[in-house]
Amino acid sequence: MSAPTAALLQATQAEAVDAIQSDVLLSSSLWVNIALAGFSALLFVYMGRNVTDSRAKFIFAATLLIPLVSISSYTGLVSGLTVGFIEMPAGHALAGEEVMSQWGRYLTWALSTPMILLALGLLAKVDTPDLFTVIAADIGMCITGLAAALVTSSYALRWVFYLISCAFFVVVLYAVLIEWPEAAAAAGTDEIFGTLRALTVVLWLGYPIIWALGVEGLALVQSVGITSWGYSALDIGAKYVFAYLLLRWVAANEEVVSEAGTAPVDD
Amino acid sequence: MSAPTAALLQATQAEAVDAIQSDVLLSSSLWVNIALAGFSALLFVYMGRNVTDSRAKFIFAATLLIPLVSISSYTGLVSGLTVGFIEMPAGHALAGEEVMSQWGRYLTWALSTPMILLALGLLAKVDTPDLFTVIAADIGMCITGLAAALVTSSYALRWVFYLISCAFFVVVLYAVLIEWPEAAAAAGTDEIFGTLRALTVVLWLGYPIIWALGVEGLALVQSVGITSWGYSALDIGAKYVFAYLLLRWVAANEEVVSEAGTAPVDD
Amino acid sequence: MSAPTAALLQATQAEAVDAIQSDVLLSSSLWVNIALAGFSALLFVYMGRNVTDSRAKFIFAATLLIPLVSISSYTGLVSGLTVGFIEMPAGHALAGEEVMSQWGRYLTWALSTPMILLALGLLAKVDTPDLFTVIAADIGMCITGLAAALVTSSYALRWVFYLISCAFFVVVLYAVLIEWPEAAAAAGTDEIFGTLRALTVVLWLGYPIIWALGVEGLALVQSVGITSWGYSALDIGAKYVFAYLLLRWVAANEEVVSEAGTAPVDD
Repeated sequence: MSAPTAALLQATQAEAVDAIQSDVLLSSSLWVNIALAGFSALLFVYMGRNVTDSRAKFIFAATLLIPLVSISSYTGLVSGLTVGFIEMPAGHALAGEEVMSQWGRYLTWALSTPMILLALGLLAKVDTPDLFTVIAADIGMCITGLAAALVTSSYALRWVFYLISCAFFVVVLYAVLIEWPEAAAAAGTDEIFGTLRALTVVLWLGYPIIWALGVEGLALVQSVGITSWGYSALDIGAKYVFAYLLLRWVAANEEVVSEAGTAPVDD
Repeated sequence: MSAPTAALLQATQAEAVDAIQSDVLLSSSLWVNIALAGFSALLFVYMGRNVTDSRAKFIFAATLLIPLVSISSYTGLVSGLTVGFIEMPAGHALAGEEVMSQWGRYLTWALSTPMILLALGLLAKVDTPDLFTVIAADIGMCITGLAAALVTSSYALRWVFYLISCAFFVVVLYAVLIEWPEAAAAAGTDEIFGTLRALTVVLWLGYPIIWALGVEGLALVQSVGITSWGYSALDIGAKYVFAYLLLRWVAANEEVVSEAGTAPVDD
Repeated sequence: MSAPTAALLQATQAEAVDAIQSDVLLSSSLWVNIALAGFSALLFVYMGRNVTDSRAKFIFAATLLIPLVSISSYTGLVSGLTVGFIEMPAGHALAGEEVMSQWGRYLTWALSTPMILLALGLLAKVDTPDLFTVIAADIGMCITGLAAALVTSSYALRWVFYLISCAFFVVVLYAVLIEWPEAAAAAGTDEIFGTLRALTVVLWLGYPIIWALGVEGLALVQSVGITSWGYSALDIGAKYVFAYLLLRWVAANEEVVSEAGTAPVDD
């Protein structure tokens, strides 16, 4: 019994694991995140030990998902399951060469970034259809980023996908920068919302910049390890630091997030 | 270093691009949609330039996602990334032959059709769990359509998946035709809701008909180019015309969609 | 024109179908579920024939999706489309052998289990962000379960994914066991909610146990057919029996679920 997919899956994973393990810079960029995500998850459980309000407990449970998705993502990368090799098309600085693509990053961002937007949206108490639309734009951004990474038939089309992904990002930015601050002010959470929004917007802008400069785009930086560290450093700020600041505030402001605090007081 | 997935991905994309570029009918069916989706996105930004109400602005942002997803979908097809070749099973009119499958269409419909249902649901002001369920049925319809397109082991099972997909479609139709009109009447948006609902139901019925008659089903039409034009023409009506009618109405009726207009007046 | 993906897809599906059809235990575990899911769907349409309340009708439509997703899932397995073969890594009891992986189960659980949580959440009338978070944790659980099944580069990493999947499961259990019962009591649906919650929690605990004992984990049970029957038996209880109990109760308690009954009476 021949098993073509078994052979293919096996060969690609083994090859990816070899390439990662033989590159200290690259493998450290992944393992550091697994360690930090695990530490964050434990820390968040510890920070929530004295929280009593049911709404605040719920925000703790929701935020705990951020490091859990992150640890899944990086375990997928170190196992070689969500890593592949693509041959760059004509026009690319590394045309004809095989470059490692950590395509699993894009796929797991489609699950982790909605959690971050959900946390921001809950803080600002935006309504459901609004949240739903911003998350749809965010998923569109991640999926077209995945497409940009995987296209090998044309260098130009890689950049077309990059631009479409940026267009989705503009929709997300519009909501987070223009629409939600008003809602946050009405909900009385504008201080922490402002901090987390600034952190998110600044760090999220880093991802397309790294893509453009790194091996997948212009290849001004041709090291897969340095490119990977770029994404990993952004993930540390946009995920664990973000979640830590949010939960520290929630623990200290249970009464603001509690159900009773939901309805704006009338006068 | 051998890289089996790199080789495979590369070969399939290159082959698909060749097949598309050598067929004027087929490639025009894709490029026309890229052009129209791009034009629609710019037009919608222009149409929204004088909108001031925050709810109306939000509907503009949400509707802008429809051409953005569409342009992503067609760029995936022309790049060969989301196109494959399948060998039709015994019983099919083209049994044993390799037929191009534009499987990416089904995948991106799973993101674009929920946006259309979201727009209809927002107009009719249906409640969240209701919207959630209809979108789940819609995603089920798209995913089983994808399965119908990819099964090569049995001709009968292709049609089983087709029928399951139609069953999900019936759930969607039930909501849109029977449940939501009442809600739209209560929200005072029944006129535009009725127009968009009619457009959506009539055009969406076209997709399973094209599948049944085209290369993937009975193959009464054996041209991949004509089948592709069938889907592309439906997409033009169900996406860009739909979005245009919606936004023209919203721009002229800001006060109906504004937050103040949400609660039905008591008498 | 060579078509590498066509050849690969074709070969894998044909091989999987052969393996399934030559194993009576295995194929019966799949076909029994197709038959029961089809019967359930028809039964639920019949049970709903006299329901008049629009909210109760809606719950019937939503619950109908559970057998529809299930029939799609099992059709994917019998067609070979969502079945593959993986070579177990060193350390596994079947190291170096090719084992059939029914990876489609994990993928379709990511659509069917949210429907079950949606039904429970609707009964308990929990609010939308809460429901959204629990469903995100649930999807995380299914996707990491898929990863656990597909990793072939390391036996240890298979169990790392297993443990991450269990961590997501703990978040789901926390919501369903600790948070939602209060909401259900407030909504006056605590009796049926309690029954369905007990059924769900007990049966869902069975899935990770089967994974651990079956061919994918410790391989104490090395028969793919018996492992498959384990999952199939759990699916029968967690999906069709669950949905039947829910709909029987809704049909007999239309006035409790109706819109009018939504707001808790004040005294």
